[in-house]
Amino acid sequence: MSTSQLTVPQTMKAAVMHDIYDIRIEERPVPEPADDEVLVRVMAVGICGSDLHYFEHGRIGPYVVKQPIVLGHECSGIVAACGRGVKTLKPGDRVAVEPGVTCGTCDACKTGRYNLCPDVRFLATPPYDGAFVQYIAIRHDFVFPIPDELSFEEAALNEPFSVGIHAAKRSGLRPGSTLAIMGVGPVGLTAIVAGRAFGARDIIVTDLEPIRLEAARKLGATHTINAREEDPVVRIKELTGGRGADVAFETAGNPKALQNALASLRRGGKLSIVGLPPQDEIGLNIPFIADNEIDIYGVFRYANTYPQGISILSSKLADLNAMITDRFELRDTQQAMVNASTNKSASVKTIIYPNGF
Amino acid sequence: MSTSQLTVPQTMKAAVMHDIYDIRIEERPVPEPADDEVLVRVMAVGICGSDLHYFEHGRIGPYVVKQPIVLGHECSGIVAACGRGVKTLKPGDRVAVEPGVTCGTCDACKTGRYNLCPDVRFLATPPYDGAFVQYIAIRHDFVFPIPDELSFEEAALNEPFSVGIHAAKRSGLRPGSTLAIMGVGPVGLTAIVAGRAFGARDIIVTDLEPIRLEAARKLGATHTINAREEDPVVRIKELTGGRGADVAFETAGNPKALQNALASLRRGGKLSIVGLPPQDEIGLNIPFIADNEIDIYGVFRYANTYPQGISILSSKLADLNAMITDRFELRDTQQAMVNASTNKSASVKTIIYPNGF
Amino acid sequence: MSTSQLTVPQTMKAAVMHDIYDIRIEERPVPEPADDEVLVRVMAVGICGSDLHYFEHGRIGPYVVKQPIVLGHECSGIVAACGRGVKTLKPGDRVAVEPGVTCGTCDACKTGRYNLCPDVRFLATPPYDGAFVQYIAIRHDFVFPIPDELSFEEAALNEPFSVGIHAAKRSGLRPGSTLAIMGVGPVGLTAIVAGRAFGARDIIVTDLEPIRLEAARKLGATHTINAREEDPVVRIKELTGGRGADVAFETAGNPKALQNALASLRRGGKLSIVGLPPQDEIGLNIPFIADNEIDIYGVFRYANTYPQGISILSSKLADLNAMITDRFELRDTQQAMVNASTNKSASVKTIIYPNGF
Amino acid sequence: MSTSQLTVPQTMKAAVMHDIYDIRIEERPVPEPADDEVLVRVMAVGICGSDLHYFEHGRIGPYVVKQPIVLGHECSGIVAACGRGVKTLKPGDRVAVEPGVTCGTCDACKTGRYNLCPDVRFLATPPYDGAFVQYIAIRHDFVFPIPDELSFEEAALNEPFSVGIHAAKRSGLRPGSTLAIMGVGPVGLTAIVAGRAFGARDIIVTDLEPIRLEAARKLGATHTINAREEDPVVRIKELTGGRGADVAFETAGNPKALQNALASLRRGGKLSIVGLPPQDEIGLNIPFIADNEIDIYGVFRYANTYPQGISILSSKLADLNAMITDRFELRDTQQAMVNASTNKSASVKTIIYPNGF
Repeated sequence: MSTSQLTVPQTMKAAVMHDIYDIRIEERPVPEPADDEVLVRVMAVGICGSDLHYFEHGRIGPYVVKQPIVLGHECSGIVAACGRGVKTLKPGDRVAVEPGVTCGTCDACKTGRYNLCPDVRFLATPPYDGAFVQYIAIRHDFVFPIPDELSFEEAALNEPFSVGIHAAKRSGLRPGSTLAIMGVGPVGLTAIVAGRAFGARDIIVTDLEPIRLEAARKLGATHTINAREEDPVVRIKELTGGRGADVAFETAGNPKALQNALASLRRGGKLSIVGLPPQDEIGLNIPFIADNEIDIYGVFRYANTYPQGISILSSKLADLNAMITDRFELRDTQQAMVNASTNKSASVKTIIYPNGF
Repeated sequence: MSTSQLTVPQTMKAAVMHDIYDIRIEERPVPEPADDEVLVRVMAVGICGSDLHYFEHGRIGPYVVKQPIVLGHECSGIVAACGRGVKTLKPGDRVAVEPGVTCGTCDACKTGRYNLCPDVRFLATPPYDGAFVQYIAIRHDFVFPIPDELSFEEAALNEPFSVGIHAAKRSGLRPGSTLAIMGVGPVGLTAIVAGRAFGARDIIVTDLEPIRLEAARKLGATHTINAREEDPVVRIKELTGGRGADVAFETAGNPKALQNALASLRRGGKLSIVGLPPQDEIGLNIPFIADNEIDIYGVFRYANTYPQGISILSSKLADLNAMITDRFELRDTQQAMVNASTNKSASVKTIIYPNGF
Repeated sequence: MSTSQLTVPQTMKAAVMHDIYDIRIEERPVPEPADDEVLVRVMAVGICGSDLHYFEHGRIGPYVVKQPIVLGHECSGIVAACGRGVKTLKPGDRVAVEPGVTCGTCDACKTGRYNLCPDVRFLATPPYDGAFVQYIAIRHDFVFPIPDELSFEEAALNEPFSVGIHAAKRSGLRPGSTLAIMGVGPVGLTAIVAGRAFGARDIIVTDLEPIRLEAARKLGATHTINAREEDPVVRIKELTGGRGADVAFETAGNPKALQNALASLRRGGKLSIVGLPPQDEIGLNIPFIADNEIDIYGVFRYANTYPQGISILSSKLADLNAMITDRFELRDTQQAMVNASTNKSASVKTIIYPNGF
Repeated sequence: MSTSQLTVPQTMKAAVMHDIYDIRIEERPVPEPADDEVLVRVMAVGICGSDLHYFEHGRIGPYVVKQPIVLGHECSGIVAACGRGVKTLKPGDRVAVEPGVTCGTCDACKTGRYNLCPDVRFLATPPYDGAFVQYIAIRHDFVFPIPDELSFEEAALNEPFSVGIHAAKRSGLRPGSTLAIMGVGPVGLTAIVAGRAFGARDIIVTDLEPIRLEAARKLGATHTINAREEDPVVRIKELTGGRGADVAFETAGNPKALQNALASLRRGGKLSIVGLPPQDEIGLNIPFIADNEIDIYGVFRYANTYPQGISILSSKLADLNAMITDRFELRDTQQAMVNASTNKSASVKTIIYPNGF
């Protein structure tokens, strides 16, 4: 491919959600990148649980779909054009796209915690459109080159993987540790790989769905617990010789799983809270937290994980492709979403291909 | 005083708790220090809330008073004799006594978190006797020299002060920060001084008792909130221009105070949980924790705070003597405890003097 | 002052360096702030050692004055006008100006270490003009409101103070520590105040000039050592009971001072290197570093210190005004620079007032 | 093996160094473990560079061999008997032995940095005997059980591996990083494995000996540089796209290697100094350190690495057996030492077997 001559059409296909359970393919103009933006030809987009939640309910907490919106934020592609001020990328570069563009000037951005920027514009979070389109324009500093050995699917999955990396960083996960992960949906699954990259020796996962536990084993979980069949806390204590886990991640958004994650920790253990439960208040055992000097870390998306994630995935520690259960072209996005919505126990991760397989 | 000739009697007075609300003065042999111990002539002992709790209820959670016990663990004194292996102290040294003797060999001790040692022997925690006596023998590495400018009372109060220091260290409190302290009993009050030592600029405290809020102002609180009269969260938001506190300490052991402490934090804020609530489970707002990437740290006693606390108190940043409301000789320990128990709103800190005022 | 009507003239005075020892007052157009910039009426500017170095030598290492340049980067003032996109400031705001504008998009900026941004535009560093002018336009996120109780001089001195804060943060300075500062020029002097804000108990400073040691005592140094008269390492060991300092800052850029700073540390001690020596290679005692597990931290300017510095200075922990020895109007900048250059032992800090005293 | 009946003889063989190049096999009484000690039947002991240095020179810096000494400190074995107070181990346990017994009561021990304990008794460091014997008695908290899948040789090599782990911890090595290791003697080689365990993606090593570079590749180095043939700094810059390494370890004790390690770092890079150079003072580029905010960490032995090292080695990330080039029985210790001394380019690691192969 001649990098200077990537042909860009005038219009493109976009999968637009008009109402709950109603996504339609429309023709839209290809966006023009601003001076500090690049235009990316989107090659692979993962369907995230949040995409499904908007599709099913039209809202996530305070974020309400009030006008047609394009969903999708786990994406990768090829740079098609660069704004005049962009020096770090060139047409033809294969890239992963970090979906939240931050202000760069607030206290959170200045201190390296840009995921807490109050002015972030995040793909597929109302009112911002997402990546179920053929081309997106996005600020150059959120677009990261990937090496040839990384597939577009893996590059797209660097997004949920980033959450796992961030949970590991927040909790100070260290080599040789025992890590418990409560819930192995896509974030929990990628967190297994993050745990391995950070050197966790024993990675004990819990879930209710056998298919997810099986995927977990493929990605490197050393022990799996079906919480329908065993008490996770009892089992984790057994597996750690009575000591408890060094670190736990709660990714399920389940109150009981959160309480189990806490109870499974050793003295001085650390807990990253990733999942959002359906209700706000969950009862936590305060004397347990105080007497055992537990650390609890809230995890909101991620920051500064993209290059690290690409580096880890490129080292082929694990094959995230093993997570992918379903693949659809962009024109079948409605079908892909319905399938993912109705088939939750069997569909782990769906990839949409906006420019063909 | 000739340091080599400190006269030690054969027997001593001890204030022994036989039953709830029943402390009696008894004659006991002065203990013989082991090779690695020193004998301390006890000069000042603070009454702690835990002492009162044992006095009133005969237990604290799993710790039950099954046989007569000596209470008291906030203490200071003069070294009266040294075991043969002790090189760091000599008779006549004025000292503060750290009351929890740890094993030195477990993983917690080896990694510098000896407060989590499972085999700690803590003064006045069943079955170990405490410091309401004229002499105690204790391992030399828990006995710290104090400079002349520090009074025995201040040295004794280095114990609750250590909790405040540890809460500040756990939460990474930094110069220029805004600190909210929920509850200004003795631990909360000393935490104000710790907050100042760590450079907190605004220290906002809440309590229900005007006398404690007044003591808080004397010790350096910049704003006080009577939670009976104002909503602490609303007020803290006002005082911080809508932003929220950088760090909060919950020292009251009150469920509502804990929820307020959390809600008063800014994005990326940090919470140290010091107080133990009456029930185990308290409902915490999990999406608030996750979305704002709050850090929560359990605080259990302290580790490596004694030299630091002595150094800070010696710099006369604040006068902890301002906390002392009541003073009794050892023979009046029963009266001192009853007074502290029945007069909680006015009695902030009582000091017992085992060897006279 | 009516904030919406701050009158801004068409032209202004600027002190322009044409050659070494040659600064001339010229009339220049007042700059127009871009959308994301504010225009600041400059009220106070400190003369920094780097300004003097350019004035005397025309260069600092690779930075060469090739065309006329305006010096001065320690500055404060009043917001005179705001670009259209600025929401955080308004005309009339009293402000401190952080002089290095960074790209906001590189890895250093994203991770909170924006002082390492390779594309920083720093006031008075060729080819960028500085603050010896009546008005400057600068990006809004480097302009910080100051409270009424802070003078413009103190706000300007927040710049060198920031270096001291950063050195303290880099070295993990903690309450109760013993801090040694080698060299008490303006950065060393402000570092004393930073040390106090971070809770250092003993602050031992060394220098060759009595006037600087006297200023150090005024700002809070607990012990001063004239390195012409005493061996600093021997004296620091004495003052610490043979143990050594917990933390040292080298601010003098003197090879011997650097070696002394290292040798004065305790096992596990930490050293921040702030000063730049005249030659590149300095011999350091490597077995001492390894065997004692010393940490050494390079310090380059600062990041995220402005709000913290303003907060600390506003708490009136120390009065930086005590450092100011000379004051000149903008029209006398040439005289001010010559005075500072020829009078180094007596002139500690000079302030230029571009809009009158 | 019946764990309660491990037969212990009255006497044992010991390889005793009487003079330089003079080790003799002698009969000694088997030591009696104290109450807090265990008796270990030594199964494998690695020869360390420090053993060789004593053998060749009779001293290492201030440590002088003044009377006959037993060398050897990298050891593993089987618990043969336990002192009365030991609860964590039992006869028959396969164990790794951490060779430095610390006081447990000084400030360094209390804060988790027990490698800085001034009263450490370290095996084979005058005046303490080491492990080239059939049985040693050592305090129980420095004896760590190993799983069946770990060989005695690997358990012995956990000692040099611990240095690599400690260097990685000191420098904050993180997943996805680029690590440069200067010198791949035994410590540098095990540091490769530590680097992999901590998630380093690219591990670039330099040495002068092809055999060591080949061993490095087997253990996981991704790039090797023969410093006789290429300029390591130039090559590392090339390999990192001009950026420089994130972290470097200097393990060679070579002045030029140390300067190269520093020069090969990126802005904000970190350097662990492990090797001790022949002379004390080495010239370091101070402006480079300051302007790039380099962190330099002295590394002295290790602390709290044994369980972590055992956990990592048990996960079979790498096979340390690949390092072993020579094997001798205890009776041939003299020959083993001479071989290791005269054959340095080919002999990477020698194992002594005090109780037979």
